Amino acid sequence: MSITAAAGFQAAGVTAGLKSAGKDVALVRNTGPDKHAAAVFTTNRIAAAPVQWSRQAISDGRADAVALNSGGANACTGAPGFADTHTTAEHLAESLGLSDADVLVCSTGLIGERLNMPVLLDGITSAAETLSNDDAAATAAAEAILTTDTVTKTGVVGGRGFTIGGMAKGAGMLAPGMATMLSVITTDASISAADLDAALREAVRVSFNRADSDGCMSTNDTVIALASGAHPETDPAGVDYAEFRDALTQLCQDMAQQLIADAEGAAHQIAIRTVNAATEEQAETSGRAVARSNLFKTAIFGRDPNWGRILSAVGTTDVEFDPTTIDVAVNGIWICQAGGIGADRGLVDLSGREVDVVIDLHAGGAEATILTNDLTHDYVHENSAYSS
Amino acid sequence: MSITAAAGFQAAGVTAGLKSAGKDVALVRNTGPDKHAAAVFTTNRIAAAPVQWSRQAISDGRADAVALNSGGANACTGAPGFADTHTTAEHLAESLGLSDADVLVCSTGLIGERLNMPVLLDGITSAAETLSNDDAAATAAAEAILTTDTVTKTGVVGGRGFTIGGMAKGAGMLAPGMATMLSVITTDASISAADLDAALREAVRVSFNRADSDGCMSTNDTVIALASGAHPETDPAGVDYAEFRDALTQLCQDMAQQLIADAEGAAHQIAIRTVNAATEEQAETSGRAVARSNLFKTAIFGRDPNWGRILSAVGTTDVEFDPTTIDVAVNGIWICQAGGIGADRGLVDLSGREVDVVIDLHAGGAEATILTNDLTHDYVHENSAYSS
Repeated sequence: MSITAAAGFQAAGVTAGLKSAGKDVALVRNTGPDKHAAAVFTTNRIAAAPVQWSRQAISDGRADAVALNSGGANACTGAPGFADTHTTAEHLAESLGLSDADVLVCSTGLIGERLNMPVLLDGITSAAETLSNDDAAATAAAEAILTTDTVTKTGVVGGRGFTIGGMAKGAGMLAPGMATMLSVITTDASISAADLDAALREAVRVSFNRADSDGCMSTNDTVIALASGAHPETDPAGVDYAEFRDALTQLCQDMAQQLIADAEGAAHQIAIRTVNAATEEQAETSGRAVARSNLFKTAIFGRDPNWGRILSAVGTTDVEFDPTTIDVAVNGIWICQAGGIGADRGLVDLSGREVDVVIDLHAGGAEATILTNDLTHDYVHENSAYSS
Repeated sequence: MSITAAAGFQAAGVTAGLKSAGKDVALVRNTGPDKHAAAVFTTNRIAAAPVQWSRQAISDGRADAVALNSGGANACTGAPGFADTHTTAEHLAESLGLSDADVLVCSTGLIGERLNMPVLLDGITSAAETLSNDDAAATAAAEAILTTDTVTKTGVVGGRGFTIGGMAKGAGMLAPGMATMLSVITTDASISAADLDAALREAVRVSFNRADSDGCMSTNDTVIALASGAHPETDPAGVDYAEFRDALTQLCQDMAQQLIADAEGAAHQIAIRTVNAATEEQAETSGRAVARSNLFKTAIFGRDPNWGRILSAVGTTDVEFDPTTIDVAVNGIWICQAGGIGADRGLVDLSGREVDVVIDLHAGGAEATILTNDLTHDYVHENSAYSS
């Protein structure tokens, strides 16, 4: 299931040869009747060619199809790289009888290298010929966007008059304003492009944007939502916005969890929940500071509930808290109480994969959770060997 | 040499038993005639007890002695920890016939554990009995402040009417607003406490504060400068301020280099120079963003001149630059030109320990250099095993 779960969508995933092995070109097509679309892109100022293209193409709230490739990010490739993306969109548009301005493009892989265009275009031709609304097609597409991911990330949620399916890829470089992540979300909801955009932004803000694996923000991050309005029980008045937004948020949070669970070389997946903060933004800042501390992340790898490194990270921020009242729990044990030594740290069990950190700022009523990973030998290995 | 190079200073370093092995208590005493002093402390809001104490003690611009220990940071230890620091200062003051308000205290080691006070106080007694102005005493003091450092960090500079000597310790957690670093600097210059303070702040700003090993800021960072006015050729008008400040800056930059060269588990020491920035602050921001990128740091460990990860890091900042004109050189090879593929990356030799990155923003005339390290298996090992 996933991106073909909602009515009105076809998908494909093929092996073009951009990567040394495995599928590497995916397509998603909206067969309508609506062609509403919204997207959120990386805020990195070094935006890859496909991000520059897609930002422009989606500005009218319409998209008919998305072409995605792994095996090359087409970032930092200048005007020739942008031309490559344009050619990709044109090629898919011709194959499907669309306007190239209604085709979005996503790429992921190494930065600073041109794509092998003949291989990519052949792959798009093959993929276009195999577009289908069955499960296997959705699975093939989810596989084709993976880089160092070890498993596909997908999900389906539903509500009154809509189904929403999604696929995502992540791996490393998961950070603020999203990860090196691509995600395509499809829905048969009857929803305007403006409402889809609003719902997507809200969902991404509290999901992908709070998954911070290694603090690095990619040049290619893209989350696309397509709405077909093809649900068999569509209400002419459209879906209930709040219900739709909440379901979309749930799906994005689920996929963000999957990204963190499969982050490069991670041995622990960590949820850092900051509670009783003055504002939600401050709660987020607190959690992100901890998520970015290499000392904290290596300590968790070593199964060391080193709360001093947590306090030290929060102490670098300007969030409201009193160093003499802050409390910290790791996996349910309040090992730091009132800014000092609390319960016996020997009681903390870090042998499992999941780690829950709670930071109580005693400064208000807001909270936020940041998802991250530990810093391991495998992370160093994978990221030092990635391009060599 | 180092902290006893300037006239008017005594030092000591002894093995008290706070660490499992090696010297762990150091003293520095200013025998005058002047007792001028200045210090810069961590900006971490979780400040250790000795930082809280010393900040208060130095507020009058006078300090007669400094007690330093490794084997425990006395951070996050609450009121009892502060009382321990107070007791330490009192004990040294009694031993030397000083006022405790003129004794500064520095601690380094694990956070969140009380110091073994009987052991520490015995160590201070022994150290006070061995205070001496000879080289061996300065070397012993420099050794006694080390934690996971593998070598001592010291230096001596001089000018008209002054000598300046220093010792430092660092290792990991080297970051903004300094490292987990302690440094004591002694000079026989005739200089007011106010001028000493101004010179020290300027020197630290462009030296220790630009050494960013792992982005983590410690709870204990302290740089202390003591001035005795004991130089044999003292000019009654005092030293030339600019000459003194420049010499002090040179000494601090030299010691910052030594810290980065010996950072925990590093295989490369990296200088990131951002040139042609709109402002010096923007140049610093650019360099710091790259220095904090785990993806960049693992790439250098893997001897991979991955300029895409450099651009991607600069792209997360708000510094002025045009993505289509930015250039990047690694070890002299301009592998990124005009935001795209430049010279053959195969020409970059990363087999040596030193790495020079130059980022040309083409946005103005300012520049700044940030010193950092690569991210290695040994870093992960040392920091995951540190307290367990």
